[in-house]
Amino acid sequence: MNKVKVGILGATGLVGQAFLWMLSKNKLFIPSFLVASEKRAGRSFKEEVRWLMPYSMPSDLAELEINKMDFNALEKEGCKIIFSALPKNIATEIEPELRKRGFLVFSNAGAMRREENVPILIPEVNPEAIELIYKQGYPENGFIITNANCSTTGLALALAPLVKYGIDEIYVTTYQSLSGAGYPGISSMDILGNLIPYIDGEEEKMIFETRKILKISSSIFPTCIRVPVMFGHLESVWIKFKERVKPKDIIEAWTQFEVGKNQTESQPSKSIVYCPEQDRPHPGMSFHGSPPGMTVYTGRARKYEDKIGFVLLVNNIIRGAAGGSIQNAELFYKKHGNQI
Amino acid sequence: MNKVKVGILGATGLVGQAFLWMLSKNKLFIPSFLVASEKRAGRSFKEEVRWLMPYSMPSDLAELEINKMDFNALEKEGCKIIFSALPKNIATEIEPELRKRGFLVFSNAGAMRREENVPILIPEVNPEAIELIYKQGYPENGFIITNANCSTTGLALALAPLVKYGIDEIYVTTYQSLSGAGYPGISSMDILGNLIPYIDGEEEKMIFETRKILKISSSIFPTCIRVPVMFGHLESVWIKFKERVKPKDIIEAWTQFEVGKNQTESQPSKSIVYCPEQDRPHPGMSFHGSPPGMTVYTGRARKYEDKIGFVLLVNNIIRGAAGGSIQNAELFYKKHGNQI
Amino acid sequence: MNKVKVGILGATGLVGQAFLWMLSKNKLFIPSFLVASEKRAGRSFKEEVRWLMPYSMPSDLAELEINKMDFNALEKEGCKIIFSALPKNIATEIEPELRKRGFLVFSNAGAMRREENVPILIPEVNPEAIELIYKQGYPENGFIITNANCSTTGLALALAPLVKYGIDEIYVTTYQSLSGAGYPGISSMDILGNLIPYIDGEEEKMIFETRKILKISSSIFPTCIRVPVMFGHLESVWIKFKERVKPKDIIEAWTQFEVGKNQTESQPSKSIVYCPEQDRPHPGMSFHGSPPGMTVYTGRARKYEDKIGFVLLVNNIIRGAAGGSIQNAELFYKKHGNQI
Amino acid sequence: MNKVKVGILGATGLVGQAFLWMLSKNKLFIPSFLVASEKRAGRSFKEEVRWLMPYSMPSDLAELEINKMDFNALEKEGCKIIFSALPKNIATEIEPELRKRGFLVFSNAGAMRREENVPILIPEVNPEAIELIYKQGYPENGFIITNANCSTTGLALALAPLVKYGIDEIYVTTYQSLSGAGYPGISSMDILGNLIPYIDGEEEKMIFETRKILKISSSIFPTCIRVPVMFGHLESVWIKFKERVKPKDIIEAWTQFEVGKNQTESQPSKSIVYCPEQDRPHPGMSFHGSPPGMTVYTGRARKYEDKIGFVLLVNNIIRGAAGGSIQNAELFYKKHGNQI
Repeated sequence: MNKVKVGILGATGLVGQAFLWMLSKNKLFIPSFLVASEKRAGRSFKEEVRWLMPYSMPSDLAELEINKMDFNALEKEGCKIIFSALPKNIATEIEPELRKRGFLVFSNAGAMRREENVPILIPEVNPEAIELIYKQGYPENGFIITNANCSTTGLALALAPLVKYGIDEIYVTTYQSLSGAGYPGISSMDILGNLIPYIDGEEEKMIFETRKILKISSSIFPTCIRVPVMFGHLESVWIKFKERVKPKDIIEAWTQFEVGKNQTESQPSKSIVYCPEQDRPHPGMSFHGSPPGMTVYTGRARKYEDKIGFVLLVNNIIRGAAGGSIQNAELFYKKHGNQI
Repeated sequence: MNKVKVGILGATGLVGQAFLWMLSKNKLFIPSFLVASEKRAGRSFKEEVRWLMPYSMPSDLAELEINKMDFNALEKEGCKIIFSALPKNIATEIEPELRKRGFLVFSNAGAMRREENVPILIPEVNPEAIELIYKQGYPENGFIITNANCSTTGLALALAPLVKYGIDEIYVTTYQSLSGAGYPGISSMDILGNLIPYIDGEEEKMIFETRKILKISSSIFPTCIRVPVMFGHLESVWIKFKERVKPKDIIEAWTQFEVGKNQTESQPSKSIVYCPEQDRPHPGMSFHGSPPGMTVYTGRARKYEDKIGFVLLVNNIIRGAAGGSIQNAELFYKKHGNQI
Repeated sequence: MNKVKVGILGATGLVGQAFLWMLSKNKLFIPSFLVASEKRAGRSFKEEVRWLMPYSMPSDLAELEINKMDFNALEKEGCKIIFSALPKNIATEIEPELRKRGFLVFSNAGAMRREENVPILIPEVNPEAIELIYKQGYPENGFIITNANCSTTGLALALAPLVKYGIDEIYVTTYQSLSGAGYPGISSMDILGNLIPYIDGEEEKMIFETRKILKISSSIFPTCIRVPVMFGHLESVWIKFKERVKPKDIIEAWTQFEVGKNQTESQPSKSIVYCPEQDRPHPGMSFHGSPPGMTVYTGRARKYEDKIGFVLLVNNIIRGAAGGSIQNAELFYKKHGNQI
Repeated sequence: MNKVKVGILGATGLVGQAFLWMLSKNKLFIPSFLVASEKRAGRSFKEEVRWLMPYSMPSDLAELEINKMDFNALEKEGCKIIFSALPKNIATEIEPELRKRGFLVFSNAGAMRREENVPILIPEVNPEAIELIYKQGYPENGFIITNANCSTTGLALALAPLVKYGIDEIYVTTYQSLSGAGYPGISSMDILGNLIPYIDGEEEKMIFETRKILKISSSIFPTCIRVPVMFGHLESVWIKFKERVKPKDIIEAWTQFEVGKNQTESQPSKSIVYCPEQDRPHPGMSFHGSPPGMTVYTGRARKYEDKIGFVLLVNNIIRGAAGGSIQNAELFYKKHGNQI
């Protein structure tokens, strides 16, 4: 089978790198047109990227040329499917234009998530949300499908099997890694042996996106804090359920969470893995699992009075960004790929 | 005035070092008898300590001799006041024995905090608890006064001015520094660029001690996590108050918190300082304030729905350990010093 | 083909983990008998290991049982080939005993490297040294083949193609990662945001082993320093050559270094890769290359007056430990495997 | 005595902060006019600074107003003495202009160090170099006195007492802290748990400046590498002396190094302190000594064959930057202060 050519916007950034690294091994898609800022155009990916992934740069993709944004060139190259790792302000302009021109945009940018007809899609959680693309005018137009903000992705996945118990209140405090801020992102002088107790816009995103994905109206009380960790967001969660729930119930719910098993290539055999050890999960496990970085790990399920507490780990760059978008594109392709 | 001679138990450990560093500048007390494990006895403090404070070792104390535990020698040296930085299991044995023999023990160890007549004392918060010493048999016997666990100290101080609003529920998630685990404590392989989402016994301490100090029965939901920071515990807090409270109310309560101002030498002019910047406080400020490390910093006061959120920073080694004990001894000396 | 069963001594330690991780994908060898300290015996690898590799634990090996040291059981299991990740003092006793009993020991321990007939083997550098096994009494006896100390491995590999120019003096200063000290190894209080300018025995090893491997008598001036990095030793080197050498000469020598290409499975297609970027290599690249961690990266080749300077990076746990031993076993098997 | 008013250029940067912090306790000088980039002008120091020192911001200076660069205003304010923490490119323009207008410039910038008549002054090392100001046209003009680059300062101080033995060759490899790159400086993604084996221009500075300060023509082979440490540069040094020298000779030379003892207020009683412990000094000691950060610590003196090796630690922000300039100004004031 010929692989489907895809374009990658924001290819040299951290999420762009994650796209290339994951796609270099993908059986369905192949990166074919890379877009980055105009000053990089004409040079190779290898020359322009500050490679930060803990694995080697895929040698076959290293020589791909960087292009400036060019709708016609994308079309000419045959890249109907677009992965967007653009900064918010640029995404706000370009993604709707791509949709208008018929492109199928799988976006990691936060820009369009608040638009009613744009799904925030996590295949294991709300696969039905993909149908919103028809409300965006597809197939006459293209569409935009977003994945959730990185910290929200972990929370929404861990909560998905628990929604059935009724969720009244969510207290979530995050330990977010540096890679979430991109490159160069955070100054080493601010974070080496230190913490930054504020992440612009993050708490609002967690509230809005968690509700939209899970279709719940629970109260959510988030505190988002940056920690000196390279990859992986850890989150501490306390939940007030409507029903009586014991720790073993939520562990069982996670263990049995098998919705859409093997739905797509990038979906791990178990999307949520509970760690029985008392001091797990930790960010050192961010690239564990298969494919690396796609599993959400939970741990420390415990009850105190009427609340349930636990911690979770999500790889913010893979599951919470590039991998999420790729998984969304795979789901689309599986369901509606014959239409392309 | 002649300074009052004091003994320090566990002198070469991290808290022991903090005792010596703070006392080297204290006007009331002077370290006179240092106790550490028997194998260190007979050598100088300087030779036996792995000095870890960010400041120079006090040169006048560096030459003090290390002794093994010896009740008679302590007495002979005239050290009636004892600062204890002993590990829990040793403290459990030795501290009651010291009390029986008439010593006045100011302990940083968790061993005795659950005993009904042993106060967990924070001079600005519950100075009246000092009177419990009489229930321990003082002045016929000696007594034990403890300071709170490090993370509890910060929480109890920040909450003290807010108790008046009625506290229903406390959700507290900690970012605890390495020094809290002592030396050698945590392996670098476990924590460099990583987190450990569990601290043995810490969550139970926060619940019990916060209630005992503040004389409240609120529900407390703690998650305690170790972060790669050297000094200073950061805590993220969400509170459900009984009354309607706005962020400006709690900021005002902190700002006006002046109970017992200038009570003792080691008490800062303002024990709680609110940081108006949106990304403060952070652990890099752990040794700010005067005396360094005795101020608790709060920040990010905000309201979401009916809950109030904020963050706080406490220097775990100074305010949350050695400094707390010293302040307690100063308070005792001020109130009852004429009895010694 | 049936894989060759091997025993792993010190299986739960950091190097032991690296052995299991690498061997889980090896086509020739399969871990079949794991040895660790007696108190761990009878439980599974998974239960007893503090897994520290940046990749998932191999699920097929996770359930292997831990055994105490038992020569007969090893024999019974059919494990003639032994990989040793024992601490030096234990290795000193056990490895000669294994040899006497006919086992083929590939050791990462420093214990036997100074014995004249024990080779310190790096297949690309001194493959002929393998013949020393006959001087150890093989095949009547077994033998011990060691790989070099981690920092020496990187230096010896980088220097191998340069020996032809005559090496008078080597000034080498290391930036050694925490994993080199094992687990728990170095206290986080000593190294977070800090350095330790001394590594016990390391400088002596670099001098002795580099000379033995390269068969040179150059003067070597090493300084070995621990840095807060998890994996990968960086080394800064200045060389006084006997001949006139330019930076481009050494770059060319590295580039053309193809001795024994594809000799063994674990040997990368290029064992030394020169990085043309001015700020490379760096430890973030420790698991780059294929197999991950087996490539030595060099960079910053430059001349000042009559000396040549460069930097190099070696993955201390893979190339400098487990991977080195495995590669040695593969070389033995290729050359003399028919004898087993 | 009235303090002498001084101006500080680049006041909100990292070195600027160090100037303010040190001067807040200085008995001779008082910061009176702060200059930073134009966009900050009109606001207070406190509002505009990202305070990064490990100590509290001096409360008396926190309210000082930030000004844009204005020669007349500086003059009007009576600030004849100027401390410059300007970036190189701006310093190149402004410092000569200041000199022309009669200001006495004590500069931390590298801009003018290569000018023949501009001294690179370290009071304990080359106090006589101060006389170069007359070759700059002083007192008709003002003058520029620079302090050395941070890593050079430590090296030159440690070598000063050793020059008498004749220095043939210096091999120096640095472990430079993040603060040396200013703020925001180095991306956390580049350095957390990592190293950067290149610092632009640094190696050239070490060669040129060390020779100029010590008036030697030795061969110097530097490698400069950035490490994840906040404050303090560690350096590993191997020296080829002309004479036969033993480790005890250099330890003695350091110990007896008393040139100009108590010359100025900011000069410590011992400018070089040798650490006898085998694993010292380390960057955790950067703010040790009195005044904090002004002592250069050496350690690990050892001989191998005919070379002498040692390590040294210099606080790059204090001794290697702001403190060096202040000390220079104090020396000038002591020698020629009556002329102002």
